[in-house]
Amino acid sequence: MIEFATLLQQCADETEKALVDILTDQPLPAEISRPERLMAAMRHSSLDGGKRLRPFLLIQSAALFGVDLDRSKTAAAALECIHCYSLVHDDLPAMDDDDLRRGKPTTHKVFDEATAILAGDALLTLAFDLLSREETHPDPSIRIELVRLYARNAGLGGMVGGQMLDLEAEQKALGEKEIILLQSMKTGALLRCACESGAVLGNASSSERMAMLTFGERTGTAFQLADDILDVTSDAQTMGKETGKDADRGKGTLVDLYGLEKSKLLLNEHLEGALDALSMFDAKADYLRQAARFIVERKN
Amino acid sequence: MIEFATLLQQCADETEKALVDILTDQPLPAEISRPERLMAAMRHSSLDGGKRLRPFLLIQSAALFGVDLDRSKTAAAALECIHCYSLVHDDLPAMDDDDLRRGKPTTHKVFDEATAILAGDALLTLAFDLLSREETHPDPSIRIELVRLYARNAGLGGMVGGQMLDLEAEQKALGEKEIILLQSMKTGALLRCACESGAVLGNASSSERMAMLTFGERTGTAFQLADDILDVTSDAQTMGKETGKDADRGKGTLVDLYGLEKSKLLLNEHLEGALDALSMFDAKADYLRQAARFIVERKN
Repeated sequence: MIEFATLLQQCADETEKALVDILTDQPLPAEISRPERLMAAMRHSSLDGGKRLRPFLLIQSAALFGVDLDRSKTAAAALECIHCYSLVHDDLPAMDDDDLRRGKPTTHKVFDEATAILAGDALLTLAFDLLSREETHPDPSIRIELVRLYARNAGLGGMVGGQMLDLEAEQKALGEKEIILLQSMKTGALLRCACESGAVLGNASSSERMAMLTFGERTGTAFQLADDILDVTSDAQTMGKETGKDADRGKGTLVDLYGLEKSKLLLNEHLEGALDALSMFDAKADYLRQAARFIVERKN
Repeated sequence: MIEFATLLQQCADETEKALVDILTDQPLPAEISRPERLMAAMRHSSLDGGKRLRPFLLIQSAALFGVDLDRSKTAAAALECIHCYSLVHDDLPAMDDDDLRRGKPTTHKVFDEATAILAGDALLTLAFDLLSREETHPDPSIRIELVRLYARNAGLGGMVGGQMLDLEAEQKALGEKEIILLQSMKTGALLRCACESGAVLGNASSSERMAMLTFGERTGTAFQLADDILDVTSDAQTMGKETGKDADRGKGTLVDLYGLEKSKLLLNEHLEGALDALSMFDAKADYLRQAARFIVERKN
């Protein structure tokens, strides 16, 4: 059995390779031309990026149902495109106004605001292009189900909706329920989508798919809690981005509400919930179990 | 036979009704919640809007192959979502910085920049949600082909790429070939997509589909030329948006390059080209022929 850290790196490398291939100079059928500056901004926004947790969760969820990496990496790259576009737009001056992301200058800093807006738009659009390709899955009904899932989790009723709630949170203090809703949309939706998509790719039964959805949901909540804890306990160098910003901006997090001790207890509860969701699966789900633990214990 | 103007209005009304239904308060399966402010911004960005030329072209192209309005209106609404999102992002201060659109204040003026960015993102995402729905077409292979077509025409190699070229045009003078490329991407791609999508929905033969693609391409070029001519000959009140802005910004158009007379001749050539592309079709294509003429002769 490969070690978790090795496998995480392998998935990240495969996602990176897929994105590099996708973002080359050749226009595809039905494309007219690919402006170099836009593609460069898309590359800056998506390559050499982070731990690739969403691709990892998707690839390992798919593997649980017998889908190999060569098949799942296209859907994984598509999901990462959506994640990366959301970071680019989130970092814009009109939004969070961040200069630093993963230790590198943000897209609007390297290029300009307009180019960053367009690079985000193009990455989001590219995600659906990728899902439409036969390499994602030979069965069009599986591909179109992924389109539905990605769109619902990424849009108005998912990630973008969560970003809207996050903006509104700057104006008013949020209660517990509102913070949970915000986080489940802004961060949780895409992590949940990763796990459920793996099940869809692997033609899982509806109870298996539901288990993966629950696993993704609990893991997503744990991820956000861990992030909020790190935001108050870590520093910019370790995180590769500015820390303590949520508090400066008056945004409520569960850590503000519960305090650090209770937050850590709650984090563990969600980890247990995530592991429970996988109880129907044998040792083949161990990488997913390790992923949930990794998310909880990570230092950045 | 219904009059062209009546039919144009009817398609616009049906598209409007579809968008109103789509943008209601109820979260759909796989959505978590729908933040009211974001949905309001999406409604402002997409409702009560313009002539709905793209939906009209799609609906009439589909009708040519026997697809009725009830079937084609979902794909038409999806295409309009993409068109509307592009206007919202294009109007942002970092892009064209427009205060007025279709005679109404732009989305970032009514809400704020961050909300406008998110409303655009959510409309783009919604387009693919709509295409994934069974009401678009019962056959998943048709739906996924539409996803591919929309993504390629709207993204890096299509509309967004064209917006990138448009931004770059502020820094350097463009030659004839560059202006034609820019326009075919920025405006042409989505109009072409409308016509080709109708053929896809109607399961057209490959030669029929190619004819619709050519019709869309020539009509798109004519559309942009007509727009550029109106930009120098019309005023803001008639157009419902600011005019003469391209010239102020130093952006080259074909009218700058050729002068008004030659541009009008060229416009007619493209109209003829569009009509030629329809030569294999009988009187059932007359509405499309009228649409091409309407686009050339319109006053706003």
